[in-house]
Amino acid sequence: MKENRIYNFNPGPAALPLPVLEEIQAGFLNFAGSGMSVTEISHRSKWFDEVAEDAIARCKRLLKLDDNYQVLFLQGGASMQFCMIPMNLLPDGKSADYVNTGTWSAKAIKEVGILGKKCSVVASSEDKNFSYIPKNIPFNADAAYVHITSNNTIKGTQWAQFPDTGDVPLISDMSSDIMSRPFDVRPFGLIYAGAQKNIGPAGVCMVIIRKDMLERVPASLPTMLKYTTHADKNSMFNTPPCFAVYTLQLVLKWLEETVGGLDKMAAINRKKAEIIYGLLDSSDFYRGTAEKDSRSEMNVTFRLPDEELEKVFIQDSADAGFGGLKGHRSVGGCRASVYNATGTDAVEALVAFMKEFEKKKG
Amino acid sequence: MKENRIYNFNPGPAALPLPVLEEIQAGFLNFAGSGMSVTEISHRSKWFDEVAEDAIARCKRLLKLDDNYQVLFLQGGASMQFCMIPMNLLPDGKSADYVNTGTWSAKAIKEVGILGKKCSVVASSEDKNFSYIPKNIPFNADAAYVHITSNNTIKGTQWAQFPDTGDVPLISDMSSDIMSRPFDVRPFGLIYAGAQKNIGPAGVCMVIIRKDMLERVPASLPTMLKYTTHADKNSMFNTPPCFAVYTLQLVLKWLEETVGGLDKMAAINRKKAEIIYGLLDSSDFYRGTAEKDSRSEMNVTFRLPDEELEKVFIQDSADAGFGGLKGHRSVGGCRASVYNATGTDAVEALVAFMKEFEKKKG
Repeated sequence: MKENRIYNFNPGPAALPLPVLEEIQAGFLNFAGSGMSVTEISHRSKWFDEVAEDAIARCKRLLKLDDNYQVLFLQGGASMQFCMIPMNLLPDGKSADYVNTGTWSAKAIKEVGILGKKCSVVASSEDKNFSYIPKNIPFNADAAYVHITSNNTIKGTQWAQFPDTGDVPLISDMSSDIMSRPFDVRPFGLIYAGAQKNIGPAGVCMVIIRKDMLERVPASLPTMLKYTTHADKNSMFNTPPCFAVYTLQLVLKWLEETVGGLDKMAAINRKKAEIIYGLLDSSDFYRGTAEKDSRSEMNVTFRLPDEELEKVFIQDSADAGFGGLKGHRSVGGCRASVYNATGTDAVEALVAFMKEFEKKKG
Repeated sequence: MKENRIYNFNPGPAALPLPVLEEIQAGFLNFAGSGMSVTEISHRSKWFDEVAEDAIARCKRLLKLDDNYQVLFLQGGASMQFCMIPMNLLPDGKSADYVNTGTWSAKAIKEVGILGKKCSVVASSEDKNFSYIPKNIPFNADAAYVHITSNNTIKGTQWAQFPDTGDVPLISDMSSDIMSRPFDVRPFGLIYAGAQKNIGPAGVCMVIIRKDMLERVPASLPTMLKYTTHADKNSMFNTPPCFAVYTLQLVLKWLEETVGGLDKMAAINRKKAEIIYGLLDSSDFYRGTAEKDSRSEMNVTFRLPDEELEKVFIQDSADAGFGGLKGHRSVGGCRASVYNATGTDAVEALVAFMKEFEKKKG
């Protein structure tokens, strides 16, 4: 820890790499020799052009995106995508397949109905309190798309492998695990991610869209709700959330240049997850809530023997400099979110604290 | 100027008060003793609650809003409001009145048509290249609302007084003059302002809505596009653009505590405008483009004798440390945007530079 900073296990907004924060701070009154703060430069200036172009180029390199994919920076978070996706990509008369793996999937499904469009919930893990990722899903070959949530922050589950949907394009909310591991993007028609967990601060949603999907966009939609509006103008139809895009750019630079890319990031994340799940598995005091083959490497959800102890654990851990360990208000319990920027050192310190806590209270 | 900072006349994103930038910078690695950057704290933490509540309270005090008004922080900029307003507030079968005073008004009008709803353009200044604000407008007494653009950044015009629309609620895009002067909010059903000109960085749009307007919101809209969603959850339905809200809060604090409120801000802005329009009026070299009674105190648009000289002026001024003086790409010419955070000292320095330039080239 540095300058009285805590170990940050927040579920989002979440930890950012310290070198990124330090770079922002150092140049905050005079960005890149512009004589202005990054918050004061025009979005149509050479300075911001370089930021946005570099962010896009790094995203494309990190995810190995070819020119069939366009990277957009939109506003409204993943929640806005829940309605934009069916508005843009689900033609009347067609149906889309949705997999329900928890709160965020359910919210995405709800918007399809509000729009008066059709979807099938082809699989759900609601029967076991969303503690697992469904397998052997009967996808519809004529679906407009298949929507999944790659990582479920609240229930602590994650798709270890993405499902085979044949020719039907996959769409995924990757808000909480984008850039945490490499994957084959080719089955995906659209990927979206609110930045505030793994790639930046709140206020920008990265949308990666395959160009054939853009052909589906109805001409009749309001301008700001059409993917084509933003694709045609390279996310500059109106003023983008410049500071959030700038921070995201620095996070991707850190991922490429300091971490060394997604293979290395994935190895680090796997190690972090092993350390903390290792403790859960070897303990009778702590109990993981997700089924083992569906465990998230990003959000480790666990319970203590009773709720009273959980309260004490959350308070004591906060006092000891560990932030954000309270489970989501809808499920209770505890959760350690270990996104890219939460280092192995933080995880090791947490596990040491947890062992000590068990010794005292177990 | 400080630390090689320039005089910033950008039209938006634009200058922010230096003390605000310095406060952000100083606490950037450890916000309010949280041990985290303001970009890393949870939007549901006590730290962010205080930020958001303080921003709302300051907005209410500065604009003298009573409890009939709610202050929201939304994403998507003013451009998203262009469609949200008719979606939410223009019932089928009714018509709204729009006044067309330039590019941004026209964009707002366009969205009504895209939605298949009805409006009347009850006045337009297009006949004289949008160089004036229309007078004696024949508003419809049964209109759902009257929409105006209080300040037109591109053409440099501003409503000196707001029109009397009787019982019909006024709606205004105030992106470029919100908080630049006091005004009577009571005729307004909704006011919206992309923050990046007068009150913050890009990435947050402040929406002030009167509670009776919320009763119009159709239940059938997508969740994120309903004002009621955001009003019911006090702008916390999903993760807000935290950093932009925080910066906005500090700008409003500066307005209240350092400037001393909107009467004082208005007096400063009037003085700044007088200095620069005074030069235009006394010169045969520089020529203001807006009619005198419609001049904007925020965006001073002017021409030089020819386009070649304008190019030289823009280049020479940039070399001398004055940024953002190029007119909007759709109209050419020159423009000095003198929002709240661009001080009298900057305006005086600009006028001195302009006099010198005229001497050399005139």
